[in-house]
Amino acid sequence: MQNYLKNHKLTGFISLKPENIFWLTNFWGSFGMTLILKNKTILISDGRYSEKAQKLVKSRENLAFQLYDENFTDNFGKNISGVFGIEDTISLTQRKLLKKLFPNIKLKITSQVLENLRRTKTDDEINKIKQAQNKVDEILYNFLIENLRENITEKALAFKLEIALQDSGNYGLSFPAIVAFGENSAIPHHEPSNRKLKSGDNILIDLGTTYQRYCSDMTRNFLFQNSTKNSQNFISNNIRIQDYIQKYNLLLDTQNQTLKQYIPNQSTKKIDKISRDLLGEFAKYYIHSLGHGVGLEIHELPNLSKKSKFKLKLNDIVTCEPGIYFPNKFGIRIEDLLVIKKDNPEILSKTSKKLKIFNQVTKTWENVF
Amino acid sequence: MQNYLKNHKLTGFISLKPENIFWLTNFWGSFGMTLILKNKTILISDGRYSEKAQKLVKSRENLAFQLYDENFTDNFGKNISGVFGIEDTISLTQRKLLKKLFPNIKLKITSQVLENLRRTKTDDEINKIKQAQNKVDEILYNFLIENLRENITEKALAFKLEIALQDSGNYGLSFPAIVAFGENSAIPHHEPSNRKLKSGDNILIDLGTTYQRYCSDMTRNFLFQNSTKNSQNFISNNIRIQDYIQKYNLLLDTQNQTLKQYIPNQSTKKIDKISRDLLGEFAKYYIHSLGHGVGLEIHELPNLSKKSKFKLKLNDIVTCEPGIYFPNKFGIRIEDLLVIKKDNPEILSKTSKKLKIFNQVTKTWENVF
Repeated sequence: MQNYLKNHKLTGFISLKPENIFWLTNFWGSFGMTLILKNKTILISDGRYSEKAQKLVKSRENLAFQLYDENFTDNFGKNISGVFGIEDTISLTQRKLLKKLFPNIKLKITSQVLENLRRTKTDDEINKIKQAQNKVDEILYNFLIENLRENITEKALAFKLEIALQDSGNYGLSFPAIVAFGENSAIPHHEPSNRKLKSGDNILIDLGTTYQRYCSDMTRNFLFQNSTKNSQNFISNNIRIQDYIQKYNLLLDTQNQTLKQYIPNQSTKKIDKISRDLLGEFAKYYIHSLGHGVGLEIHELPNLSKKSKFKLKLNDIVTCEPGIYFPNKFGIRIEDLLVIKKDNPEILSKTSKKLKIFNQVTKTWENVF
Repeated sequence: MQNYLKNHKLTGFISLKPENIFWLTNFWGSFGMTLILKNKTILISDGRYSEKAQKLVKSRENLAFQLYDENFTDNFGKNISGVFGIEDTISLTQRKLLKKLFPNIKLKITSQVLENLRRTKTDDEINKIKQAQNKVDEILYNFLIENLRENITEKALAFKLEIALQDSGNYGLSFPAIVAFGENSAIPHHEPSNRKLKSGDNILIDLGTTYQRYCSDMTRNFLFQNSTKNSQNFISNNIRIQDYIQKYNLLLDTQNQTLKQYIPNQSTKKIDKISRDLLGEFAKYYIHSLGHGVGLEIHELPNLSKKSKFKLKLNDIVTCEPGIYFPNKFGIRIEDLLVIKKDNPEILSKTSKKLKIFNQVTKTWENVF
């Protein structure tokens, strides 16, 4: 950050975005602000948080606390002068407030400065994200064995799954779980509904937990059957099972091939393009971007899309999630979370991607041939 | 809204705030925009949501849908001209985007226009908020009988309570539950920790659910004992129980007296002042404002504070929540949710405010004398 200030001839930087403040100071609260100066960082918050803030200040070097109260400008704000970078994510009201609180500074709008620094994860951050993802890998298959039943609704399954993932409050959710049965899987951002699970349905589950505020993200697909018949020709909505399997394997192959492109210096736009090319004639059903960074935010830098202009860097944590969606029929998305390493990415998602059918009668996962 | 446009000589209004968009169109999604014109409202969103948006358009008069894609400006944006109100809550980036998408319009920054309209609740909205609050009232006492046990942590109790409130996904949470034992209750926005419940602790619980996106909010206080001794002289942290009870009754009396001031045309600043005056010498321990509006947002207009400049109106839904906090000792906050009616407010919170001790040995609630 000090380099950024120097290169852009700034006196300092003011951050109002909670994730940036947390990354800089370990502070999280409903009101806070961080003032980055050349030789120190000042955390600003109100009386409700002063006790907590004082503790943080003691635990970090070069971090100071300034109380935000009615005398803030007189006691502190008016003594600050110079040119300060501000985030373009702040609201028009927040900018107005900053001008009032710091009457003697000049504000310079910047874009994603701290977000760019936050891209590169430390070992500690990688470990937290791993721990968040481990929780999903640890429980998913067994959870489904216990809970997949004909007639359970998407909503009920999502709710039970969210509770299991939170593990009595030791973990959080990085976003509301997406659970989609049959035709609902064709909607990429489907919200769990009262649609009941039927024998023959395909299932899409997109899940993320948080551990110490760091997020994970993964998507898997399954088939469900409540019958002992050995061979089933159709899944729901009159789709031939072979048709689903063929699309699944094409997408899985696409995803696996694309993963190999996740190396330092590779252009994100190019990887997105490669994943589309691999899908060939089905690329038109691939209606979203390839992936995104994951950290304190579930969507952060770098994004991987048709238009994104990044190059991957060591210790970026990103998703690889191509998907194909056939309206009113079915959709499939296969999503892994990974860390960019020197030669090959380190895949954090450990849950198998081999397509399996869960059979309610035998309560077992069976391979799909 | 049409009156607002006319009075302010605006061609229209552009809303980017999710709650405002939902209130106008019933649409909720990760990307959306609403363009209010004199004779119709246009919902704008991307391909992921077009199916959902089309359904909404069919169900509402004067609502149209416009797809947001790469040709948006050419196909639609450049044909719109005139002066449009925008929300001061939008970010600097969003304003930049609007200028690009609609090159021929002039933007006028406005403050809380739709929020002011959303203040006054319809019967349907009141019913949804009632239903959210009913869930809390319905379960709280029995939940505590089942779950209050010596050594349970704040975190574990909050997690179990949140699951019970969500009722298998039929309800949501309007904010993470606050559960504070003993000295932690002195922190108004305490985050549940691993602090264990001890015999003699006071407990503060601040809870809210959502029903169909509408919020509820309520705070109650209890005492906990794991002993059959009839009389206990001290609660935790060496506080005489009579001291706690005296403060509780003072605050309850303050809250009940203050509730009578919740009538149409009453100034919010004045009500806040009255509640402080009622606390007399203890007003200095009352370190937050009296209350806030509740609706699609957990904090919305009108707010009731030292500085707020509103007058209450029929069908405002607001909280009344004075509190007193003694650092490292204990805190008490008593919060009801209510609807402003002609003569007296309609109190939506039905959970008793009479101070009770839960006795773990007998598993019963006992009155405090």
